[in-house]
Amino acid sequence: MPKISKRGTLMPNSPIRKLVPLAEEAERKGKNIIRLNIGQPDIPTSDKALAAIRNLNVQVIEYSHSAGMESLRRKMAEYYSRHKIDVSYEDILITTGGSEAITLTLLTCLNADDEILVPEPFYANYYSFATSTDVKVVAISSHIEDGFRLPPIEDFEKKITDKTRGIIICNPNNPTGHVYSRQELEQIRDLVLKYDLFLLSDEVYREFVYDDEEFISIMNLEGLENNAILIDSLSKRYSATGLRTGALVTKNKQLRDTALKFCQARLSPPYVGQVAGEAALDSSDQYMDYVFNEYLTRRNFVVETLNKIPGVYCPKPKGAFYVMAKLPVDDAEKFAMWMLEEFDYNGSSVMVAPGAGFYTESNLGKQEIRIAYVINLEKLALGLKCLEKALEAYPYSIKNIKENQKAFLK
Amino acid sequence: MPKISKRGTLMPNSPIRKLVPLAEEAERKGKNIIRLNIGQPDIPTSDKALAAIRNLNVQVIEYSHSAGMESLRRKMAEYYSRHKIDVSYEDILITTGGSEAITLTLLTCLNADDEILVPEPFYANYYSFATSTDVKVVAISSHIEDGFRLPPIEDFEKKITDKTRGIIICNPNNPTGHVYSRQELEQIRDLVLKYDLFLLSDEVYREFVYDDEEFISIMNLEGLENNAILIDSLSKRYSATGLRTGALVTKNKQLRDTALKFCQARLSPPYVGQVAGEAALDSSDQYMDYVFNEYLTRRNFVVETLNKIPGVYCPKPKGAFYVMAKLPVDDAEKFAMWMLEEFDYNGSSVMVAPGAGFYTESNLGKQEIRIAYVINLEKLALGLKCLEKALEAYPYSIKNIKENQKAFLK
Repeated sequence: MPKISKRGTLMPNSPIRKLVPLAEEAERKGKNIIRLNIGQPDIPTSDKALAAIRNLNVQVIEYSHSAGMESLRRKMAEYYSRHKIDVSYEDILITTGGSEAITLTLLTCLNADDEILVPEPFYANYYSFATSTDVKVVAISSHIEDGFRLPPIEDFEKKITDKTRGIIICNPNNPTGHVYSRQELEQIRDLVLKYDLFLLSDEVYREFVYDDEEFISIMNLEGLENNAILIDSLSKRYSATGLRTGALVTKNKQLRDTALKFCQARLSPPYVGQVAGEAALDSSDQYMDYVFNEYLTRRNFVVETLNKIPGVYCPKPKGAFYVMAKLPVDDAEKFAMWMLEEFDYNGSSVMVAPGAGFYTESNLGKQEIRIAYVINLEKLALGLKCLEKALEAYPYSIKNIKENQKAFLK
Repeated sequence: MPKISKRGTLMPNSPIRKLVPLAEEAERKGKNIIRLNIGQPDIPTSDKALAAIRNLNVQVIEYSHSAGMESLRRKMAEYYSRHKIDVSYEDILITTGGSEAITLTLLTCLNADDEILVPEPFYANYYSFATSTDVKVVAISSHIEDGFRLPPIEDFEKKITDKTRGIIICNPNNPTGHVYSRQELEQIRDLVLKYDLFLLSDEVYREFVYDDEEFISIMNLEGLENNAILIDSLSKRYSATGLRTGALVTKNKQLRDTALKFCQARLSPPYVGQVAGEAALDSSDQYMDYVFNEYLTRRNFVVETLNKIPGVYCPKPKGAFYVMAKLPVDDAEKFAMWMLEEFDYNGSSVMVAPGAGFYTESNLGKQEIRIAYVINLEKLALGLKCLEKALEAYPYSIKNIKENQKAFLK
């Protein structure tokens, strides 16, 4: 039997999806599992997108242009213009989700064994995309105690080698919800220019920025025309993750021309996703406001509820639809597994994403979990109640260990 | 400005799409261009697929399972069973087109710098997928003179090194239309087992096999359970190339489990493509017969017409919807460009795919072109008439060069 590849062996399991088999097993046994682990919103897909699919008026579902349908690219350029991002349709390559945009960028900008800097915790699949393109991720740690703000720029600088070719940021951030300030972004900009790096910014949560925080795209940082690559996706904005319609946006023509060769190899992005995406860009203000307010309400509820649970700490993030929370347990992954396997509260339990999966090189995040507030308040409330009750019952919570020790010493 | 990657620089332009700018320029000038270069059929998409899209009855377009929707995988297993290929739904991973299935297989089975053997001419994007995964393609030449049958197995054996990890075949073949015989496949099987290689077989044209030729899947070759990977796609079968719904099928569980990790990183294949693909698998016999007969008629017409053109040679392939033809010109790519830029026949001209783009390491194929018979007979006839007239008029055709030489010597 031939051996599988080293990169295949090195490839991590998704920390977001790794507990799924335990959840499925619990469900088979009749337990009700509230899923707070994955960013799959329950918000209805934009009706413009659904209508475009149902009214699809073609006889043949053809390949599109490898760069994506020109009409979609033009519509996206208009969308960016409304958001004060000045790009032409030619700066936009349509991709199969934001995922493909990141892979294409890594292939185009980095050689095998090159290094890319990423503030951690980070969206775990960045590590997977890097593994599949033989790129090394070098993490710079940020911390829950200060709300995951940008680590000191010296921490980045210390890790720059002659292999360093770029930086990835996610803004608003998955998993932390942090929105980078102008000052933070200018620090990154200066670093990028000093070392002539590429800067990838994953801005798929652009529309979900709360408390009047200002959102700044890297496309609006001066001097980065040839360095900046905006990663985008329509999935989260219009609640249509299954469309797989994303984009790679850059003013660097050589980069685009090169990325297009990779695009040509896979022929074209999905046709129906593009048609639906183009329609979604016309979603009403009413829909966009509804989605925004729904996430805002949920964020407020989740942060408030979590912080009321004894021993739990959750900073209040300004964006996206995730929070990281620190739990009074030694190992949040073991606790998450225990909740699925051993625990229930009136027949229900909860699935969360263990925080450690969003960190790589450090031992950070072991006490943390990520929660996606993408389900309705009622389910969120039940999920968080399960979490609270589970922490009370968990024999290895820090509080319970101490009490057990006290009892033992008596 | 940071440099783009070496692999980006090495990445080839698609030979199928590289003349597109010349065609677009000709069209801007008012010329009618018949496109015989690309495998984009004009056959209507299966109405089952279109109906499923138009009747899409969901409120939220969600991620599917990373391995694809279980209902689609089960339906595909039934389809294979009808075609006497015995696989379970668990052996099937749904991919974003056949393209992604190949990339996933290369990532899973080969390390960077490993080698894969491919009989040439081959589907040019294999080279692109190999470049994007840092795999080296080693070509074994087949020849138009004997209808592109499998090269002697010694030719493969001579090129095997300690880096050789697999073989790719395409059956029925793109671009040659060749259908591998049982004897040929058993030779490959023995070689694969002797050197413990992976065998990828791209069988997306399975349904288009003519003249009662027998089609044999590698999944039915004994002893290859852990070596064989079937690459599939619904695009060509149901005339829905824009769906991007393909599959990686293997009985090797370790391979599947590893490939699934790469699948998890990109979250899921496109949802609507899966729904439409599942419905397409119920396409009526009437539709399948119509598509088959249409291609059969076109193949017969194209082969007969080409062989009537003085100096042109075209073997009669048994499968797929392509032919390779040898032209009486020194350089078919220059000729193809000339047809777009300089020539017209009553206001029309024709775009073909230069044959050299389907070969890599040899100087073969320079006189060859690939024609896709995916447009209706009327357009095919006009396209081939343009080709005939162009060969008469081309100053650098072998006949015309000889005549010019004679005239000069007189």
